[in-house]
Amino acid sequence: MTRSAAREPRPPAEVVSLTTDYGLADGFVAACHGVIARLAPALRVIDVTHLVPPGDVRRGAAVLAQTVPHLPPGVHMAVVDPGVGTSRRGVALGTPEGLLVGPDNGLLLDAAAALGGVTGAVELTNPRWLAPRVSATFHGRDVFAPVAARLALGAPLTDAGPAVDPATLVRLPEPLVRRVPDGFVAEVLTVDHFGNVQLAAPAELLDPLPAQVRVRPVTGDPATDDDPTAVDGWEREAVHGRTFGDAPVGALVAHVDSTGRVALSVNGGHAAELLAVDPGTLLRVRGLGVVGDASGQHG
Amino acid sequence: MTRSAAREPRPPAEVVSLTTDYGLADGFVAACHGVIARLAPALRVIDVTHLVPPGDVRRGAAVLAQTVPHLPPGVHMAVVDPGVGTSRRGVALGTPEGLLVGPDNGLLLDAAAALGGVTGAVELTNPRWLAPRVSATFHGRDVFAPVAARLALGAPLTDAGPAVDPATLVRLPEPLVRRVPDGFVAEVLTVDHFGNVQLAAPAELLDPLPAQVRVRPVTGDPATDDDPTAVDGWEREAVHGRTFGDAPVGALVAHVDSTGRVALSVNGGHAAELLAVDPGTLLRVRGLGVVGDASGQHG
Amino acid sequence: MTRSAAREPRPPAEVVSLTTDYGLADGFVAACHGVIARLAPALRVIDVTHLVPPGDVRRGAAVLAQTVPHLPPGVHMAVVDPGVGTSRRGVALGTPEGLLVGPDNGLLLDAAAALGGVTGAVELTNPRWLAPRVSATFHGRDVFAPVAARLALGAPLTDAGPAVDPATLVRLPEPLVRRVPDGFVAEVLTVDHFGNVQLAAPAELLDPLPAQVRVRPVTGDPATDDDPTAVDGWEREAVHGRTFGDAPVGALVAHVDSTGRVALSVNGGHAAELLAVDPGTLLRVRGLGVVGDASGQHG
Repeated sequence: MTRSAAREPRPPAEVVSLTTDYGLADGFVAACHGVIARLAPALRVIDVTHLVPPGDVRRGAAVLAQTVPHLPPGVHMAVVDPGVGTSRRGVALGTPEGLLVGPDNGLLLDAAAALGGVTGAVELTNPRWLAPRVSATFHGRDVFAPVAARLALGAPLTDAGPAVDPATLVRLPEPLVRRVPDGFVAEVLTVDHFGNVQLAAPAELLDPLPAQVRVRPVTGDPATDDDPTAVDGWEREAVHGRTFGDAPVGALVAHVDSTGRVALSVNGGHAAELLAVDPGTLLRVRGLGVVGDASGQHG
Repeated sequence: MTRSAAREPRPPAEVVSLTTDYGLADGFVAACHGVIARLAPALRVIDVTHLVPPGDVRRGAAVLAQTVPHLPPGVHMAVVDPGVGTSRRGVALGTPEGLLVGPDNGLLLDAAAALGGVTGAVELTNPRWLAPRVSATFHGRDVFAPVAARLALGAPLTDAGPAVDPATLVRLPEPLVRRVPDGFVAEVLTVDHFGNVQLAAPAELLDPLPAQVRVRPVTGDPATDDDPTAVDGWEREAVHGRTFGDAPVGALVAHVDSTGRVALSVNGGHAAELLAVDPGTLLRVRGLGVVGDASGQHG
Repeated sequence: MTRSAAREPRPPAEVVSLTTDYGLADGFVAACHGVIARLAPALRVIDVTHLVPPGDVRRGAAVLAQTVPHLPPGVHMAVVDPGVGTSRRGVALGTPEGLLVGPDNGLLLDAAAALGGVTGAVELTNPRWLAPRVSATFHGRDVFAPVAARLALGAPLTDAGPAVDPATLVRLPEPLVRRVPDGFVAEVLTVDHFGNVQLAAPAELLDPLPAQVRVRPVTGDPATDDDPTAVDGWEREAVHGRTFGDAPVGALVAHVDSTGRVALSVNGGHAAELLAVDPGTLLRVRGLGVVGDASGQHG
């Protein structure tokens, strides 16, 4: 982003969205709503979620990135911020389809990519944009909410603070996805409220597989774990389907979820409990009836 | 509903309400809000609840029906939809006091009755009303939210798809309620956040009972379980009162709740835990000091 | 408040806030939103929290008081009301910076103090302001929400019912805070979503203590428990810092939180679990290296 681009007048945003790990039992979320409402009384605020597990930046990043494409153009504030009050930077990022505001800890970058990529970044140091007294532990209220409201009203991004080189923004490690001869290995990215297990793998890795697949955890190095006979633990069959109801009740289905990623679900059940997997677990999905079929164990 | 009635221009709705089993930890609810906000930026959205237990259509139907009478006239979208992506229909229902949008699995009909009854129904098949690509597993975002927004803006119901004969709509079984000589037997309809046990019985079944009643589970066939001496298990005394505080702290009170149904509560406690009952449990409530009093066991 | 002051025309409120123990699984909160939206369709509503533990008036009072200063001027409705339907009064309170509506059980008074103090109070008995039929158990919907909406629209406080002498309002006991020779003793006021332990002590009691402090529970009478050698149980060291990251990961930090009170936190952890404390627990915080240092036990 050139300085002139960042200073171009923007129309006011239609919405500010909020994504945090603040929970719903305290007044933290309401204090952010209040700060925004004081500065921008007519602005619509949409809560994405406030139940990101405390400090789980990766989970916050995934929810945010998967939700912002469905929100109106606006300013997306996200706070999962275990480093609050330390030297970590607070930043605002420009993208072709909206602005992102939050800590510089990797939380915002997947969402920025989903909105077209980072076109500019600033560090939030302009004291006139912040609360008169910034607390050491509640930057949602004192830094990010007032910045989000001012940006939503159309203030230039560069008025929030000095430009930051996007290459210096903190990034999360990429989740592992690897094509293997009879399928793919991928990291569990998220587990949702229903227990659906979302893998980091895109649809095109599942699409070519046959109507029945097998799923098993990868416990060794995925680069060398290419022998499907080396099953260390369970392996489960799954229907390769479109939706939950394509498998019998209680059975596993591998499908492409509503974000375009491969997911494992149980019709009427909780796949993450059935599989005993968590975000970060590596799973191997392979076509049934292809390489190594005879030796597979069935879960 | 005649076709001409369904095509009558409606004023824009004041509100869209949302009732789902999506939980609050993912971005599912926000995606629905976002879709609605993109189509109808000025529309107010009220969240009824998103904590219907996953797939519990009956619970969703009860919460929806008990809440819609208190909302402004509008469009009520509800999604508890274990059959998403299968051949189950998506429908919109007209009523004298608002519109309902959701899956055709019984979720909407109690609410329709509470709003005056179904005056028309359509199946949601108009592709111009839906997301450009409808996912197999997230019809809240891709089908129901855009339909709800368009209806809220005043579009005719019949533009959403072809008319459906209301007699063909899927219905849930009616909860059991039966008057017996010294009181009544009724199914537990819901248990709320406070542990209040709401029975399917209307107020007029409790009103004639004396100031003390007894409650016990019905384990046999309620049609023949008419001998109050045949107590199989516990029986508990309850104060027949108006509010929680009409019983001593920790004691059971039978009262008419804020929806007009009989409920069992514990003053300062959790009645469902005390009674160890769940939705679907049959309970018998009888007047103390009437038939069979001498033989009753006290809990 | 003189009657003339209470009758002065007020501008419409910018916001109604809601704080309850209703939970999020039923339609109770939505019914309140609905009642407000019917009376005041354009009014913004901010949910503070609905997860106050059932009947925990003290917790509700603390969350409300700590949040209202950050909300726009408006009407703050709070319902944690174990005495609903009994003879306890429903009240509305005027303050210099907003109005409060709820039961007269102490819930509102800390918030009133945070908004500048009670300038007037009325009992909510005007039947024209309430639901046509007031239920015995849901005054949030039938009493407090319609009153909050009418006040938000600018109706005079005294039209809600007769004046109440503020001296007669029910008060909660003050939480214990006491300065002792080498530090202070204070009651745990709240535990938040992250496990941060907020003490009733103000910042000025922690500020003079050195860079390392010790924390231990007070099991005897705090008035006589002034001998730091009489340690009955554990004592833990804590960093006296500004934010969580001032202590190593997993270590305890004593700091001034975003409301100006002393709090104990664990960097990346859950202080309330580590310390096994709850609201109401008395803790002693003393400077390390001052009186009694040699005999202290370390946790």
